Amino acid sequence: MDWQKHGRHIFAAMPEKPLLHTCLSPALLHLYDLSNTAVVIIDVFRATSTIAAALHNGAAKVIPVDSVEGCIEIGAEMGAITAGERDGKVVPGLQHGNSPLEYPRSFIEGKTLVLTTTNGTRLLHMALKKGATAVVTGSFGNLSVVCNYLLASGKNVLLGCSAWKDRINSEDTLFAGAVIEQIGEHFTIHCDASLAAASLYGAVKADIWAFTQKTTHYHRLSAYGLQKDMEWCLTKDIAPVLPLYKDGALVAG
Amino acid sequence: MDWQKHGRHIFAAMPEKPLLHTCLSPALLHLYDLSNTAVVIIDVFRATSTIAAALHNGAAKVIPVDSVEGCIEIGAEMGAITAGERDGKVVPGLQHGNSPLEYPRSFIEGKTLVLTTTNGTRLLHMALKKGATAVVTGSFGNLSVVCNYLLASGKNVLLGCSAWKDRINSEDTLFAGAVIEQIGEHFTIHCDASLAAASLYGAVKADIWAFTQKTTHYHRLSAYGLQKDMEWCLTKDIAPVLPLYKDGALVAG
Repeated sequence: MDWQKHGRHIFAAMPEKPLLHTCLSPALLHLYDLSNTAVVIIDVFRATSTIAAALHNGAAKVIPVDSVEGCIEIGAEMGAITAGERDGKVVPGLQHGNSPLEYPRSFIEGKTLVLTTTNGTRLLHMALKKGATAVVTGSFGNLSVVCNYLLASGKNVLLGCSAWKDRINSEDTLFAGAVIEQIGEHFTIHCDASLAAASLYGAVKADIWAFTQKTTHYHRLSAYGLQKDMEWCLTKDIAPVLPLYKDGALVAG
Repeated sequence: MDWQKHGRHIFAAMPEKPLLHTCLSPALLHLYDLSNTAVVIIDVFRATSTIAAALHNGAAKVIPVDSVEGCIEIGAEMGAITAGERDGKVVPGLQHGNSPLEYPRSFIEGKTLVLTTTNGTRLLHMALKKGATAVVTGSFGNLSVVCNYLLASGKNVLLGCSAWKDRINSEDTLFAGAVIEQIGEHFTIHCDASLAAASLYGAVKADIWAFTQKTTHYHRLSAYGLQKDMEWCLTKDIAPVLPLYKDGALVAG
């Protein structure tokens, strides 16, 4: 028997699974190859949850921008809704906040939302600059839709946590773990960050709300009275839509 | 009642606990303030385990160096034992490897070991450069000794994981979790990386060896036949010594 030939035949018949990595902070993004890779931008509290809410409720698109000035400028140019918070308050010069609860269908349908956030938008732009093949945003609200997209795409996957000023945060890590629990078996995972995220999610998923109350971001947001926001942001599949980055905006894919 | 005065009195009587943070990768070290801070350098597989083994078995000191050339040069100057591996083999020009099992008392007592490692040594030098008040090395072999030192020092604590080429690894994260489980209640912890490390450790500690077999480093080291090394490196308090950095070397503190 020609073992090499036979081996090659088997190999051809059983293609390797795509790779999946988890990047726990934007400060670690440089370690990852983004070619042929779909990047999921994760900013559970609250940018990517709010993006899912707005698109699920019929927003035409969401334009993520880094700066307040950019948000005001683009908003005026497009006659769009501008939104952004700093320290739990709507930024002066903008119209709305970062809460997913502010964007019901009755308000947002058919409109364009220009959203300025710090951590999530920054990571999204970093991933684009580094040549990501595709960029989507993920949050518990659209967990299953994102998972189905990643499975169907056939690409390698990078789960990109937006973190908090580059410091690892629990809620983004947990979402990465939730994705891995749902579809990890279909990927090759040689990545301890993924292993840690999945183990952490497995350990706390029975009461994710109780765990969240120990996190830094909970303390920051609850001081602004945003408990209801956070509960919404941790609810699975409440906004089943795929926010896909295309021509400068996130649109329902 | 003068509330302010009374409040101040209570505050003075109940000083705040020192802070504890966990840094999961050298690439995140810049995020942390190291003033009045004891930094624990963690490189479980295998640098800080081997340092504990050598010092516990009576080595006079261990000099950690970044480069093979530096290792050879310092070793020759001091008439010391040189050690270092790359890809699981002793580096040409050096005498010994990175295994803790290579340094029994009969061999190492009273001698100086010049050790070159990549991840652990690099983080140690980064922490010194950034002005850490005190630097010790930690591993499961000297877990309790390190914990007792941190409690007694009264300083803030940074648990510094050496990671693998800046990528987060499980074994260093788990050691941070073990420290937090043992002494975390005596510190103020507003740090999701610490929370994640402690939760992960809690979730897998019942069979840390089974979990380790899923990690990237296990696969790397087991390919070199180093399972026994890894089992040793995961054994708690097998080398109870405090490796304290002083005048360019780690000595038993």
